[in-house]
Amino acid sequence: MASKEGKEKAQQFTLKTPKGTKDWADRDMVLRSRIFDTISSVFKRHGGVTIDTPVFELREILAGKYGEDSKLIYDLQDQGGELCSLRYDLTVPFARFLAMNPTIQQIKRYHLAKVYRRDQPAMTKGRMREFYQCDFDIAGQYERMIPDSEILCIAVEGLTALGIEDFVIKLNHRKILDGIFAVCGVPLADVRKISSAVDKLDKMPWEDVKNEMTEEKGLPIEAADQIGEYVKMKGGVDLLVKLQQDELLMSNESAATGIKDMEVLFSYIKSFGIQDKLSFDLSLARGLDYYTGIIYECVTSASAPPSDRTNKDKTSKPKDPDQDVSEYVGVGSIAAGGRYDELVGMFSQSKKSSVMPCVGISFGVERLFSIIKAKEDMSRIRPNETDVFVMAFGGGKEWTGFLPERLKISKVLWEAGIGAEFMYKSKPKPRQQFDAADKIGAPLAVILGQEEYAHGMVKVKELGLGENSDEGRDVEIENLTDHISRLLVTIKGRR
Amino acid sequence: MASKEGKEKAQQFTLKTPKGTKDWADRDMVLRSRIFDTISSVFKRHGGVTIDTPVFELREILAGKYGEDSKLIYDLQDQGGELCSLRYDLTVPFARFLAMNPTIQQIKRYHLAKVYRRDQPAMTKGRMREFYQCDFDIAGQYERMIPDSEILCIAVEGLTALGIEDFVIKLNHRKILDGIFAVCGVPLADVRKISSAVDKLDKMPWEDVKNEMTEEKGLPIEAADQIGEYVKMKGGVDLLVKLQQDELLMSNESAATGIKDMEVLFSYIKSFGIQDKLSFDLSLARGLDYYTGIIYECVTSASAPPSDRTNKDKTSKPKDPDQDVSEYVGVGSIAAGGRYDELVGMFSQSKKSSVMPCVGISFGVERLFSIIKAKEDMSRIRPNETDVFVMAFGGGKEWTGFLPERLKISKVLWEAGIGAEFMYKSKPKPRQQFDAADKIGAPLAVILGQEEYAHGMVKVKELGLGENSDEGRDVEIENLTDHISRLLVTIKGRR
Repeated sequence: MASKEGKEKAQQFTLKTPKGTKDWADRDMVLRSRIFDTISSVFKRHGGVTIDTPVFELREILAGKYGEDSKLIYDLQDQGGELCSLRYDLTVPFARFLAMNPTIQQIKRYHLAKVYRRDQPAMTKGRMREFYQCDFDIAGQYERMIPDSEILCIAVEGLTALGIEDFVIKLNHRKILDGIFAVCGVPLADVRKISSAVDKLDKMPWEDVKNEMTEEKGLPIEAADQIGEYVKMKGGVDLLVKLQQDELLMSNESAATGIKDMEVLFSYIKSFGIQDKLSFDLSLARGLDYYTGIIYECVTSASAPPSDRTNKDKTSKPKDPDQDVSEYVGVGSIAAGGRYDELVGMFSQSKKSSVMPCVGISFGVERLFSIIKAKEDMSRIRPNETDVFVMAFGGGKEWTGFLPERLKISKVLWEAGIGAEFMYKSKPKPRQQFDAADKIGAPLAVILGQEEYAHGMVKVKELGLGENSDEGRDVEIENLTDHISRLLVTIKGRR
Repeated sequence: MASKEGKEKAQQFTLKTPKGTKDWADRDMVLRSRIFDTISSVFKRHGGVTIDTPVFELREILAGKYGEDSKLIYDLQDQGGELCSLRYDLTVPFARFLAMNPTIQQIKRYHLAKVYRRDQPAMTKGRMREFYQCDFDIAGQYERMIPDSEILCIAVEGLTALGIEDFVIKLNHRKILDGIFAVCGVPLADVRKISSAVDKLDKMPWEDVKNEMTEEKGLPIEAADQIGEYVKMKGGVDLLVKLQQDELLMSNESAATGIKDMEVLFSYIKSFGIQDKLSFDLSLARGLDYYTGIIYECVTSASAPPSDRTNKDKTSKPKDPDQDVSEYVGVGSIAAGGRYDELVGMFSQSKKSSVMPCVGISFGVERLFSIIKAKEDMSRIRPNETDVFVMAFGGGKEWTGFLPERLKISKVLWEAGIGAEFMYKSKPKPRQQFDAADKIGAPLAVILGQEEYAHGMVKVKELGLGENSDEGRDVEIENLTDHISRLLVTIKGRR
């Protein structure tokens, strides 16, 4: 019974989910579950174990980890007790977990869970405020670049397993970027903000980024131009060779380390045979503060905005913050990650346990979903798994409708692990029962007739055969579950 | 690279998860996943389809649904925009979903997800502030008590499938309770608070409940005594017969409807053969406001506090709110639910679509986990699913360590869907590699030797055989994945 307070309030609110969130149901839910299963099985075959962390963390745990994006964190209200925030990603909670469990010196962990960002949503492109990330991370002290190369391998295998073919992994190295900024004369204190300007190169033309560097952030024009020459470079091993011949850059210790890393990485990538999927791209910067080594983003043709970004009329951006901006953006990167060797150390209480190098990948499920759904024949997806519809036929004044008998037969099927439903009606008509079975797509009917049931028999009939339909077959109740189990194997193999 | 702000803050916080929450990892995580799989498969065979709703709802959606427990709701901070709260259960979001989707007139939906309550945690007993619920609900206009009986059937099947044998389902009906309160002279306005006092009968003796009714809530002593006579009654069909003979109670319309419902329900329960698991118990009240028909709770011996509750020294309760109270409480009910016919209507904009009767069940996973873990041999659980450890043996100054070759062979295995790991080391020693394989429990090793590899061969060796270990077998690389797949079927069947 509803309280009075509740009934009065019922008139006052808008019936919706919060902004940037949505319900998942029906065939969408089945398709999304398949994406989870596909990604999990890739993670598992690379030795991953899974963990689960709380959806909110102590607020200080998240502080100072996300640079300019920190303003997008959802805070919980102070209701007395600890101050908490919803997690912004799965990486910082993983680092916190490692710091809390110093006996874990090596782990490959995966985690599929929701994260929260108070960002501008673009729902139809899979840009949400509540969305799933599927993360795989390798933590531990290992020989240079071996885990990094396996992570890139997982990126390729994951996207390929999901049926996505036309992707490219844009790859860069934070130490090379830092070296570029250094040799171009960016003061150390300004590196982070100049880096965050470069990060916008996939969303705005170079001229706008240059303006941001010089006018907003006070960088001399010559320095910006010199950076511009570097960040236009992309390629494969050829770019690596070019950088190795750049004496100015190689004289910078950070850049030289990053370039050596990339050389080693390229050799492993060749062994894995995934070099064609990679594009070494000096314009990739990644916004988050915590990366220290390789950084990368997987993009497809759906990642970019519909119109060529250099021609985009920026004034056409929606002004109403509640309007869906999906017409103006692409889905963005569908998977991304990098190396973060210092994040765990930020949480560690002792110097000794503070070194825990990590490298990881995160798949963006909603974005992948919007790409995969567009290619999928959704009508072929069955939202439920009911195998059998239990019916009763009869008639006349004497007919009871056989409800108790339908309950008994259903229970027998359930106990054998067979999915079964029946109509919640004492005396249903045959037509109603067939329609109900049809609606849920049950492949089999078990039909209880008065005379046959009295002799311990029921009829088993395959459904959905249309013109090829037959009369079904009488089966003894004591053999029913065996018979149906065998039949289901045949039918599922055939359909 | 960590920002300066982050590094400074790193010294200031406590390294922990928020109060009442915890990380799940390792074997616990595997066991919990098994519980999810078991419950989901029961839900699926009863025709369930799954949905997913956001972890937070607009605050007004939750208002007025939870009675006294509303104070336990977590609110999100007002950061501009909508006011939101974390979901308290999965039932109210489901009702909101139905109201938003009026074309859905019938649905059996299941939902496994976390809910949030700012309650006093008792972590070792599975009483958490963040915890999983596994819900199955049947919504739609159906013949009286048929879906209710299937829900009780699901309760029995779910707990049985989880290996829990010694449970009882305490069952009552809100309309009978309302009738009892009416005939005992409780004013209509006081029914909810008297009901919430009765609900505490599983945690405190009758005398305390009576005191709460009379002293705190102002009920006349005679009325309380009369209620006391009723709520002491429990049984099966015998109690039903007794109530049917109670002329005073049968004269009340609400009670008579509830008693008729129970009569119909008992007949279906008998058809399902689950009558032995049920205890018709007039003391069961359930705290939540929204129930309108049957209510029930599944309890086991672990549900009650360790000491007999009538002898409990109440002064021994911990006073520090941060202290774990698990020594003083049982795990409580392990599954519970009821009928709520008016909840969807509270959200509906039009009168017409406002009738959507629902009945459901919710399994409490953390509580089930604490019971199941206590009986489980946790050492037999393997946290990862790696099938093969790829090794290289060799020696001498010339030996390269075969890292590129190990990468190639691993990639071949991964592409065939076989779980594989290798040491992230250029020149690992044989002992190190066997130890690493042993640590993750890999059943097979693929060993690359210099000479064999040159001839397109590798060795495949079963691990973990102890004294029965053999030398392994040389296999051509081109037949490797077929050979391993067949071998794994044999090994997994045997182990």
